[in-house]
Amino acid sequence: MPNIIHLVLAHMDGLPDGNDGLGLFIVPKFLVNADGSLGSRNDVKAVSVEHKLGIHGSPTCVMVYGEQGGATGYLVGEAGKGLRCMFTMMNNARISVGLQGVALAERSYQRALAYARDRIQGFKLGDKSGKRVSIIEHADVRRMLLTMKTTTEASRALAYYAGSMIDRMRNEKDPAQAQLAAARVDLLTPLVKAWSTDLALETASLGIQVHGGMGFIEETGAAQYYRDARILPIYEGTNGIQSNDLVFRKVLRDNGAEARRFEDEMRAFLKNFAGKPSDDLDVIAAALDKAIGALAETTNWMISNAKSNTDAIAASAVPYLRIFSTVAGGYMLARMAYAAHEALLTDGANADYYNAKLMTARFFAEALLPQIYGLMTPVMGGHKTVMQISNEQF
Amino acid sequence: MPNIIHLVLAHMDGLPDGNDGLGLFIVPKFLVNADGSLGSRNDVKAVSVEHKLGIHGSPTCVMVYGEQGGATGYLVGEAGKGLRCMFTMMNNARISVGLQGVALAERSYQRALAYARDRIQGFKLGDKSGKRVSIIEHADVRRMLLTMKTTTEASRALAYYAGSMIDRMRNEKDPAQAQLAAARVDLLTPLVKAWSTDLALETASLGIQVHGGMGFIEETGAAQYYRDARILPIYEGTNGIQSNDLVFRKVLRDNGAEARRFEDEMRAFLKNFAGKPSDDLDVIAAALDKAIGALAETTNWMISNAKSNTDAIAASAVPYLRIFSTVAGGYMLARMAYAAHEALLTDGANADYYNAKLMTARFFAEALLPQIYGLMTPVMGGHKTVMQISNEQF
Repeated sequence: MPNIIHLVLAHMDGLPDGNDGLGLFIVPKFLVNADGSLGSRNDVKAVSVEHKLGIHGSPTCVMVYGEQGGATGYLVGEAGKGLRCMFTMMNNARISVGLQGVALAERSYQRALAYARDRIQGFKLGDKSGKRVSIIEHADVRRMLLTMKTTTEASRALAYYAGSMIDRMRNEKDPAQAQLAAARVDLLTPLVKAWSTDLALETASLGIQVHGGMGFIEETGAAQYYRDARILPIYEGTNGIQSNDLVFRKVLRDNGAEARRFEDEMRAFLKNFAGKPSDDLDVIAAALDKAIGALAETTNWMISNAKSNTDAIAASAVPYLRIFSTVAGGYMLARMAYAAHEALLTDGANADYYNAKLMTARFFAEALLPQIYGLMTPVMGGHKTVMQISNEQF
Repeated sequence: MPNIIHLVLAHMDGLPDGNDGLGLFIVPKFLVNADGSLGSRNDVKAVSVEHKLGIHGSPTCVMVYGEQGGATGYLVGEAGKGLRCMFTMMNNARISVGLQGVALAERSYQRALAYARDRIQGFKLGDKSGKRVSIIEHADVRRMLLTMKTTTEASRALAYYAGSMIDRMRNEKDPAQAQLAAARVDLLTPLVKAWSTDLALETASLGIQVHGGMGFIEETGAAQYYRDARILPIYEGTNGIQSNDLVFRKVLRDNGAEARRFEDEMRAFLKNFAGKPSDDLDVIAAALDKAIGALAETTNWMISNAKSNTDAIAASAVPYLRIFSTVAGGYMLARMAYAAHEALLTDGANADYYNAKLMTARFFAEALLPQIYGLMTPVMGGHKTVMQISNEQF
């Protein structure tokens, strides 16, 4: 019989000063004997299973510890440093939840794509022959599918890029390089968590829309992604918390230094595009260059208002994270587009694949990256009434 | 025992030329005797009940008609004009589904607001006293609530404005005025249906987010709105279909005449704001005036590309509808803000209510109306790759 381990953050009495009053404990279902065998039942009880909107494979329970005399727990790390211990887990979990968003979005896209290829309805625009076509031929269905494909590729690339920085943070021989990688991981973690999971919701919703009425039927499967995805912007720190983390701890604490270093890296990368005879690369580079400028302007606004108008910064954190992530996602797609353009010169056998990468990046540059221009004004001016309206006036 | 009436659109054989081949039939569960009493059972059978994502109060069934000898149906309207008959129902239904969106959004907002007032978590930003506060004090929760409140008020007002035009269309003595009202109803119907229901989804999703983890638990109730709302952008014509209706039938068919007349009405209304000593009205008027210009520019682009690039128009229809609706919603809030400003001069007892209207409209002008600037570029340039990418490259 397997044992079950609970990780419990609990208040601790009688600790010395300078602690957070918490301890992180391992509380097993069965105590463990000295020889490693299972011992007696611990005072741990699941009193109910929650009825959740989604992720039904994961039974969330209301737990009761120690109601019948006391439960035994084993302290993890130091007493009074429980919150710090938990954040070690939490930071890993944030990247993982971001990847969960990418995975859900990918499944949702694949299912919608298969349906759009299969389902025959309507006629090709302007065709009077009466020939019915698959719905993938309809412009708006294509727009939805391309949005799903592009944002999923961008958010996956951003998560992998963050992963590569975790590797460098751990393995760089040069401590200065390792430290720079760590700063980049810190900056990217809230983007990966919040952006990937917001996109997972949007993608799962589009996935239902592509299915039409069939998407509303549970047996089709599209609805499950929509239900499952809804927890992602909430757990391991809501996306509002991620946005505050980005603004207050990752951008403002070093006065924008790491944010600017990332902007500089993106600008430097775009120099590779100069002189390449590609209309796609030209469009992508121009759109991204303009977007980096917009991000820089917004970041500077956040920095100059950091002290005088903290409430405004907090009220603008979510759209600011969206701007930052969208530009970072555009950078990821630009890197893929550049690699695809170079690969096309030598690998003609895979031209369809590489050309798809170029089109995906161009679609993002033309259709999705401009969203940030609809968010800059809100960030810099949309916060006034948020704090002005009284609680009673809502 | 009550009878149950089915409305069935069915193919009809042997009709003369110039028809749509369809008839709309009333198919009752029980036949009706000459004296009005219930007769024998009709050959109508529900063979299964669908397992849907939401609206569980409405049991959608797979129906079988006439498998055991033949079902009796009663023709509604003329044979071979079934599609036209159905659209009479459909046009009414579109406004009604829009209102369903408004209602769901309102319920979702009220529940989230009650929770935000009740739920105590965290501290007021910058307050070191250790006093815990309700989450309505947190800037990002306020931003979410104000977004929910503002968009719900705007979409409700737009639906009521469309309703007032239906009244005028039916009751105006002057036929020219009745015709203008009818043209306005035609223009507004896809906006009310699609925008209200897209906003219902967004609002229900924010409603869960305000609840945090509790929102994911079905017993809380927030999740039901999110599930129920998901059908609204699909039924009675998907929002993609509404967008095509707006572009091809409502804007392009009269070469933009009615769209321009609506733009002119909005601009004319803003003249009332001149000379009013109100910072709020100034901000609202400037934002709306700029937005009307952006809408006009986008409409002109649609008109000039109508013939040469139909696919681009179709691929841009959804974001174009969003731009159009957002500007129309801003106009509705501006009208309410103006009325509130005037009422404040004489009705001091309700000052809180009127000031809330001014803040709501200003929030929309500063934080939500600018979204259209993130959609103009996509409308006018985001469609290229949508048709260029091959079906296999998805």
